[in-house]
Amino acid sequence: MLRGLVQVVPADTVTAVVNTADDVVLHGLHVSPDLDTVTYTLAGAVNDDTGWGLAGESWTVMESLERYSGQTWFRLGDRDLATHLYRTDRLQSGATLTEVTDEIRRAWGVGCRLLPMSDDPVRTVLTVEGVGEVGFQDYFVARRHDVTVSAVRFAGADAARPGPDVLSCIGDAEAVLVCPSNPIVSIGPLLAVAGVADALRRARARTVAVSPIVAGTALKGPADRLMRELGHDASVVGVARLYAELASVLVIDGADADLAPQVEATGMACVVTDTVMSSPEVAAALARRALSAVGAPPAPAR
Amino acid sequence: MLRGLVQVVPADTVTAVVNTADDVVLHGLHVSPDLDTVTYTLAGAVNDDTGWGLAGESWTVMESLERYSGQTWFRLGDRDLATHLYRTDRLQSGATLTEVTDEIRRAWGVGCRLLPMSDDPVRTVLTVEGVGEVGFQDYFVARRHDVTVSAVRFAGADAARPGPDVLSCIGDAEAVLVCPSNPIVSIGPLLAVAGVADALRRARARTVAVSPIVAGTALKGPADRLMRELGHDASVVGVARLYAELASVLVIDGADADLAPQVEATGMACVVTDTVMSSPEVAAALARRALSAVGAPPAPAR
Repeated sequence: MLRGLVQVVPADTVTAVVNTADDVVLHGLHVSPDLDTVTYTLAGAVNDDTGWGLAGESWTVMESLERYSGQTWFRLGDRDLATHLYRTDRLQSGATLTEVTDEIRRAWGVGCRLLPMSDDPVRTVLTVEGVGEVGFQDYFVARRHDVTVSAVRFAGADAARPGPDVLSCIGDAEAVLVCPSNPIVSIGPLLAVAGVADALRRARARTVAVSPIVAGTALKGPADRLMRELGHDASVVGVARLYAELASVLVIDGADADLAPQVEATGMACVVTDTVMSSPEVAAALARRALSAVGAPPAPAR
Repeated sequence: MLRGLVQVVPADTVTAVVNTADDVVLHGLHVSPDLDTVTYTLAGAVNDDTGWGLAGESWTVMESLERYSGQTWFRLGDRDLATHLYRTDRLQSGATLTEVTDEIRRAWGVGCRLLPMSDDPVRTVLTVEGVGEVGFQDYFVARRHDVTVSAVRFAGADAARPGPDVLSCIGDAEAVLVCPSNPIVSIGPLLAVAGVADALRRARARTVAVSPIVAGTALKGPADRLMRELGHDASVVGVARLYAELASVLVIDGADADLAPQVEATGMACVVTDTVMSSPEVAAALARRALSAVGAPPAPAR
């Protein structure tokens, strides 16, 4: 979505507020999977086959770790490891996650500003049937989200302050785009940080969400299953009910055109377009359409 | 020296008590340079050109770190990094340094037992002329020990307890060998840990030291310069004065044969032999000679 967005507006006018509740300390290193995926993606360096990590990655460190039967279910590539080493070093030297995130995105030549949702630790905790509470990476990577979840909470969210500029960038933005991420475990943590949901409510007229659910399924990841298991309708209507107070427009795919009236019944406007971003052109068109829907005409394509 | 020793006695009868005052936290990782050098050396995996790190190492992580202008003066190879990741992970899970050291040496098939001198943090701090106090790796690696040192202390040594079995292995050993390491910054920290010097005094009759100084210079590293700067004679006589209370025998090189009477004047017996370990055979002969000097005849070579 962000790759589309930076095609239709200058990258330096875009600020992405990113989930950090997936962050995890592995081998003593502070790993921020969502921040890194956004950075590597915008840098054109992401491994497009997996959607995470770096293209052309090598795995010498992980292979060497096998000698020790060390934990290797969360695989960190050699080049990717450098990011975690740098982040950890800077955090231990007293830098904030916001500061080091900015250093990292600049080092990759990313023009879009990236803001961690909070510099304070927030951690997604899922209650898995037959197991109990597990952390996000345990759920998502180790268990490949192939389990039944009965509850999700965001530990630390009560005490977490939004990162510097998070609230002001929502307050000042010409348009706010809620990306088609998992509403429960990717957008959910942002909304759990004090002040973020309120800032969106105030910006509701300028806020547009793109549905991550197309024809009842998530194109990627467990959003549909999670929504169902937690009592939501795994459809664009379910997404609309989650976002209706925060966003004035929901963008849905043509495959769900027949559900537009039910989306509108939640109080949101509904835009029907192609949301399956199979090419940069589709992504750009989607971004253009979403911005227009909240009255923020994109700059001429450059 | 240890490579020589395990040629002349069964490896599983050897326990090496190793300095941990060089340990350093880098990028959040617990690095134990001396333990790793001993492990890799005994495993036959050490980089013989440098005397540290692994042979055939790759440097992808460090090269990638340069993107961030991260700290790269202390270079950690990719395969070596796996050791630090494993150690850090285990320490954070509650294992002691003694436990994880044993796991690592076993993973490398090292038959000789390795004991960190202490599971508590002890850190070598050097007062460098014109700079002030610096840590060991700053002095040794970043400044390449090309500076003038006016004092050395071992922070934490007062409170540090010797590692489990450290005192008993000295107490029970048939022979105790003080390896030809730097007396100030490699052997010094061990002696600063409560009880170790006393244990050696009690074992003095069974304790033999090998001089790291040959013809007034250290074969490797800054032992001679450090000894001079701290007011010691940078010679086998200076070494003898440092060890006379702890060891009954000093082994010196033929190049220093004329100083044997001065060594004996300190109260130590003096053995003159080839101490420059230019080949495995010389190392084995030196080990055999050292053990014999304290009445511990080596097992027949296997």
